Amino acid sequence: MATQRIYLAGPDVFLPNAAEIGLRKKMLCEEFGFVGLFPLDNDVSENSDGEKIDEKIFRANGALMHQAEAGIFNLTPFRGVNADPGTAFELGFFAALGKPVFAYSNHADDYFDRVAQTFGAHRTPDGDFCDADALMIENFGNADNLMLDAAVKLQGRKVVRPDASLVHPDDFSGFTACLRQARLHFGF
Amino acid sequence: MATQRIYLAGPDVFLPNAAEIGLRKKMLCEEFGFVGLFPLDNDVSENSDGEKIDEKIFRANGALMHQAEAGIFNLTPFRGVNADPGTAFELGFFAALGKPVFAYSNHADDYFDRVAQTFGAHRTPDGDFCDADALMIENFGNADNLMLDAAVKLQGRKVVRPDASLVHPDDFSGFTACLRQARLHFGF
Repeated sequence: MATQRIYLAGPDVFLPNAAEIGLRKKMLCEEFGFVGLFPLDNDVSENSDGEKIDEKIFRANGALMHQAEAGIFNLTPFRGVNADPGTAFELGFFAALGKPVFAYSNHADDYFDRVAQTFGAHRTPDGDFCDADALMIENFGNADNLMLDAAVKLQGRKVVRPDASLVHPDDFSGFTACLRQARLHFGF
Repeated sequence: MATQRIYLAGPDVFLPNAAEIGLRKKMLCEEFGFVGLFPLDNDVSENSDGEKIDEKIFRANGALMHQAEAGIFNLTPFRGVNADPGTAFELGFFAALGKPVFAYSNHADDYFDRVAQTFGAHRTPDGDFCDADALMIENFGNADNLMLDAAVKLQGRKVVRPDASLVHPDDFSGFTACLRQARLHFGF
């Protein structure tokens, strides 16, 4: 049986120890019988052929996403209350292709609670909840925007979250739980 | 020729006047010869059949995205420095399907500048830029995370941004500029 390749999406690439995290995640993939594809592995060198670096990175990541048989998505809030939008983009990319997706967050709280804490929450006359800017707050018990959580739930899983309210950004227990789900999914 | 359907993605659905914005956007689509598909149009009623509302909304939006020949994405920052992750998810969904995408932001500044203003920015020894939490900041002159901008740029367009530093959330000039691009793309 060919070894399944898993695309490793997340804001990990912006952490100071990104390379180390990528290496660790790839080693964990190997322990579980997978090959991890970490975006940083793309050898995107300086702009010799005139193509913009960001477009090069996009093409390289797109190629990895097409190669991968599945994706694991780190939805830990990044620079605010929400998941990194680059990771959200990639989760949508996988969902559209119908590939299996596994996701975790290193933050325990519901999206609703994080927003309420940062932006306030009050109930409107029609029963919805709004923040202090009168923006509606989704209240489905999800880890993030419903499109992200539901993409995972419709495949029969949930976004893995820790017990503690916030674990260290490079804690690997959520990631490892996703690898367990992936092994179950691929039946070995 | 069949009328092209355009999926209207954005955090507009969370604004207090979401229904009004949806109506206005659909009327503008019609003026340009398109049919606008606004997520709120989905008649997602209360939970009579036991399926969770969020999963129902996801399914309904997914069906609209598959129907649409193109998408217009409102990448205006939402609850922080980044675009709404639900919108980012949907942009990735369209990119994976190879459908034409058009995007605008009602904020004029680069992502880099928004992050620097909110989280600080300093240059690291290896020439990258980091915020006060030592998280790398992308510096490509983009409106948001490179995956979002590059998805648009690789189709030969850019994320439309206004001249003023921040226009009203329901200003329609960026949206209208996207409709012009769409008309050009579909050749009429």
